Order: sequence, then C-alpha cells, then structure tokens
Amino acid sequence: MTDGAEPSVIPDAEEDIAPLPDEFAFIRQHFLALAGPEALGLTDDAAIFTPEPGRDLVIAADAMVEGVHFLSDDPPDTIGRKLLRANLSDIAAMGARPSGWLLTLACPGRAAEPRFDEAWFQAFAGGLAEDQRLFGVSLLGGDTTSTRGPLVLSLTILGDVAPGQALRRNGARDGDGLWVTGTIGDGALGLRVLLGELPDRDGWLAGRYRVPCPRLGLELAGIAHAAMDVSDGLVQDAGHLARESGLGVVIEADAVPLSAAARAVGGGEALLSVCLTGGDDYELLLAVPDDRAAALQACCAARDVPVTRIGRFGPGRVGARVRRSDGTAFPLARQGWSHL
Amino acid sequence: MTDGAEPSVIPDAEEDIAPLPDEFAFIRQHFLALAGPEALGLTDDAAIFTPEPGRDLVIAADAMVEGVHFLSDDPPDTIGRKLLRANLSDIAAMGARPSGWLLTLACPGRAAEPRFDEAWFQAFAGGLAEDQRLFGVSLLGGDTTSTRGPLVLSLTILGDVAPGQALRRNGARDGDGLWVTGTIGDGALGLRVLLGELPDRDGWLAGRYRVPCPRLGLELAGIAHAAMDVSDGLVQDAGHLARESGLGVVIEADAVPLSAAARAVGGGEALLSVCLTGGDDYELLLAVPDDRAAALQACCAARDVPVTRIGRFGPGRVGARVRRSDGTAFPLARQGWSHL
Repeated sequence: MTDGAEPSVIPDAEEDIAPLPDEFAFIRQHFLALAGPEALGLTDDAAIFTPEPGRDLVIAADAMVEGVHFLSDDPPDTIGRKLLRANLSDIAAMGARPSGWLLTLACPGRAAEPRFDEAWFQAFAGGLAEDQRLFGVSLLGGDTTSTRGPLVLSLTILGDVAPGQALRRNGARDGDGLWVTGTIGDGALGLRVLLGELPDRDGWLAGRYRVPCPRLGLELAGIAHAAMDVSDGLVQDAGHLARESGLGVVIEADAVPLSAAARAVGGGEALLSVCLTGGDDYELLLAVPDDRAAALQACCAARDVPVTRIGRFGPGRVGARVRRSDGTAFPLARQGWSHL
Repeated sequence: MTDGAEPSVIPDAEEDIAPLPDEFAFIRQHFLALAGPEALGLTDDAAIFTPEPGRDLVIAADAMVEGVHFLSDDPPDTIGRKLLRANLSDIAAMGARPSGWLLTLACPGRAAEPRFDEAWFQAFAGGLAEDQRLFGVSLLGGDTTSTRGPLVLSLTILGDVAPGQALRRNGARDGDGLWVTGTIGDGALGLRVLLGELPDRDGWLAGRYRVPCPRLGLELAGIAHAAMDVSDGLVQDAGHLARESGLGVVIEADAVPLSAAARAVGGGEALLSVCLTGGDDYELLLAVPDDRAAALQACCAARDVPVTRIGRFGPGRVGARVRRSDGTAFPLARQGWSHL
C-alpha cells in the first residue's frame, strides 16, 4: 500500500477523491475571517488557548430563536450582533472582560427558506465582524447544521476577571441602592414599533431592540456589591438580585430612566409598565452602598454611561416591589419574560 | 425610601412580589443537580472557574437537531447523552481531558408538543447525570428558550491539555499509517435499523447510533502525528485529515473494522459503503508512523479500545481514496455527511 505503486493501479481520477462538502466551503467563506489564532483556522475538532496566568475565567451561553428573540425580517447584520451583545452583557454583569466566542447555527435549508442566501450570511457575518473589532473578541469555533424549523443560534462567550473580583448576584446588602445603567424599556418599545403597534420617528427604539449596548469596561470591583444584566425585564431581574441576596428591593417607578424616544411615545402608566417588564434592555443592575455612589457615578461617567439610582434593598419580603412616587403600589400586568 | 416606613404604605400582599418565572423552576428542577461549583447554582450571569496553571484549554461546540441528529422517538435519556458524547469525542480527538460543559436548549412548548413533559426532561437530565459521572465533567451553565420548530440542542465542551501536547489534524506525515479505534458503520446501520430498513437482533446497532462511545483517556501524545474524530463519515473525515496535512490517504476498504452486528447484516459492498460514509461513529482517526504502531496498540489495549490500521498517508493527490483488496477503486455512492 505504499504510494509508489499507486498510479499504475488506480487512475488518479477527479471523482476518485472526496470533495470538500458544502458545509466546509460555507464556514470558510463566511466565518474564517472572524476566527482568531486559537480557532486553528476552524479546521480542527476544538480551539486551543493558553489562559492568562492569574486570571479567573468566566463562561456563559445564550440562545436566540427566530420569531422569539428577533424578527424574521430583522436585518441579518443585526441578528448576529444582538446575540453577541446579549452574551457580552453577561460578561459585563460579572465585571469581566470578554475574549472569545463560539457559535452554533441551526438554519433552515435554502430550499425551504430562500432568504437564507449568500447575501444574508455575508451580512450576518459582517455584523459580527464589526462587533468583534468593537469589543475586542474573536471567534473560537462552532458548528452549522440544518433544521426544518426557524433559525436557532446559540453563542458561548468566554471572558476573564481578576481572582475574587467577579460580581455576583448574591452580594447585595440591606440599605444598598439599586442602580441601573442607560435607559430602560427601549428594547420592549422597539419591538412594538417593529410590530407596527407604536410610532418611532427616527428608528432609535427599533435600533435599541435590534442592537443593544453591553456595558463593558466599567471598573465596578470595589464599588458594586452585586450585579446582573437586565434581559428579561427590570422588575423580574431586580427580583432575582434581591432573592439571591436574601433581601427585598423596592423600585421607584418614576425614578426609572427612560430615553427621550420612550418619553415621546407617552402612554402613561400602561406604557411605563411595558418598559419596566419588557426585557431586551441589556443594561446593568447594580447594588451599591451609598458611600460608593459617587465612585459609581465617576466610573460610569468615565465611560459616558448614564447611571441612575432607582430603588433600595431592604430586609422586607424577599423579591421586588414597584412603587409610585406617592408610595402606592405601581400596577404591573406581568413581571417579565419567561422563555418556557 | 428606607424599608422601615414600608409596611404602613404598601400592604405586603402576595401579588405585590414578583414570583419566580417557570423557566427558573424548570432549570432548578432538572439541571441544578448537574451543576458543578463553578456554575454558581446556575443563578448568575456566567460561571467562574480558575484554570489549572500550566495547562492549555480546549473548547468546542456542537449542535443537534431533532429529526437530523436524533429521532423524535429516541429515548430522552439517550438524546442528551449523544450530544454530550459527540462533544466529548472532540475533546478526545485533541488528546485532551474534558472538564465542563454548557447547554442551550430551544424546545417546542408543551402545548405544541405534549411529549416534552416533566417525565421527558427528567429522563433527558438523568442520562446527562449518568454520563457526567462516567466522564468526570460537570455542567457550567446554559440557557433554555422556546421554539415553534423542532428541539435544538447546543453544547459547548471545555477541556484541558498539557501545553504543546494537543493533537491536530495537520500533522500527518508521508508514510504514516491511518488507524481507527473501535468499529465503523454501527451508527449508520443503527439509524437504518431504527428507520425499519434493517434488522438488528439485539439492539446493539441502534444503541451505537443513540449512545456513541467517546475514546477519552488514551495517552496519544508522542504516538499520533495527527488525530480527529469520525463524525461525518470515515472517508470524508479521513479526507480532512489528509487535506489538512497536505497529503493523500488511501483507505483499504476490507481493513476497516466492522462489528459482529454489522457483519451479521451482510449486504456486501453496498452496505460496506454505508459504513464507510454513514457518519455517527465517534471513533478516533489517527496518523501514526510505523515505528510507533506498537506503542499505539499498547496504549489502546491499556484502555480496552480496539485499534486497526486501515490505510496509509502518501504524497499523491490531496484527499482520501478507497481501494478494494485487489487494488481497484472501491465504489462509493457519496463521501459523507454535509449538514447544509
């Protein structure tokens, strides 16, 4: 079986050699440009990397489903970016810095869904390439497969943090202020805009739904006692922070920061309720003692990130309550999103 | 807004507090028992772990879709195990040892698919729990969401390896033998058994389709020049190994090890062709120089893993060819699986 005898036995015909299957051409065409050196050209069974000595690693995974987390007609470049940014928001919530990501993609065949053509994937990967540069991360690996259902994307994000400096949900203390970055409710209102239920003069709300802004780079260690990101609705997520810390938290509805675009929508308490419970915010919720409030404001100002105190943790019943400014309970139709 | 004034203003009513959404009860009920200490009780935004100093990390992700990678009526305990084992096989192919995993799960609602009930998920998680113990890994995190399509699972696997010891696909050298662990074709035949196209007296072939056996724990560093796992069909995957190494590889069809159950099926060259290209093997393909063949056999024997030389790398045209024992080309209907 040495190679020397070969040509006389088998004609070295084209059809005699296994061609590369379409899947590999697809990966090479659209994703190879995203791969960092650890990804080994996306041709091996796994990525290999050497962790930076003396750092802890953080890792998380989130999935997004067409028709659940994004709309079928969302621009393809925003779909990948939304998933990457949602995962980056988890890294931000841990007070960590992101390094790499893996993506699995279950995609309807082009025969069933002609819109998933080369141009669609070029735009999808293009959006990811742009965000990679912006956030300093690179693709480590992944998998592509077909499905007879909607597009399902799953992303795993990897990051690192100084040992003992990771922010947890369970560290809030009695008396801590509840703070939130940015503005709340834009994503939920943006979805309603895209569904034709609300007006949006300049596309800002829709943009916040499609491309959230992970709050990376804030130096929160030594300032926040606890942190998480708001993805499933402010009230529900504040409830998690309180519950994990064994505390209650009272949210002042009128203190919750709304964007100019959200305020322009109007709609009174009914619409404020949508903002408080709608999800898709990807802002940070923080438990901060009053004597570090100035430090929090300074570290957020250094990154041009607005930050607002919207409530306070206390010993009462575990979970979140929402109040009007007159002290009465703010009426909520629901608390937030459950994905099951 | 201190807590002291609260009871006089708001009645501390049950409905005033956000309840935990169903998603969290679901995660706690079925997946908390799988979580290692790094998973932080599955309640934070990410897992945190301290990598073992002086080790490189390896990471990979694979997705599986109902009706593509497993059958709708496969026992639920085997579905999670198949996905975990397919990922463990990638770690084995790198010569690494596994440590943890993350899972995302896009599941049809119970209204649409009543079979995804508590008992289904209990069995699904039970299979994963069993394999966790067997392979010494633990759950780090993940995500659950709903979909209007089929069940889609995505798993990310993490492992580690001594620096410089990871096995790559691109290291095969001219003259290396092509070796394979275990037997080839059982998974492909098992699928045909489950589709009612072939008999299977004792369920062995179906078992190999549903629960593959990742070849972890072989001490291949210093023995194999290159490695990968066979998941998309022996011929196609051997072609990858050859291509990445810039070589050709000739596979001797008659040398490819078949199980007793596969041999009992009979079917001549047509069925052998199914075995050579069918995929779902999760065995290791190795490039090993002849002077290390004895060491390879010894290290496999130490783990009771059969290993067989089935071909040889050479300089000819890049890619894989398959020969009969008389030297003529073995006819293949296709080369392997492409998932797009």
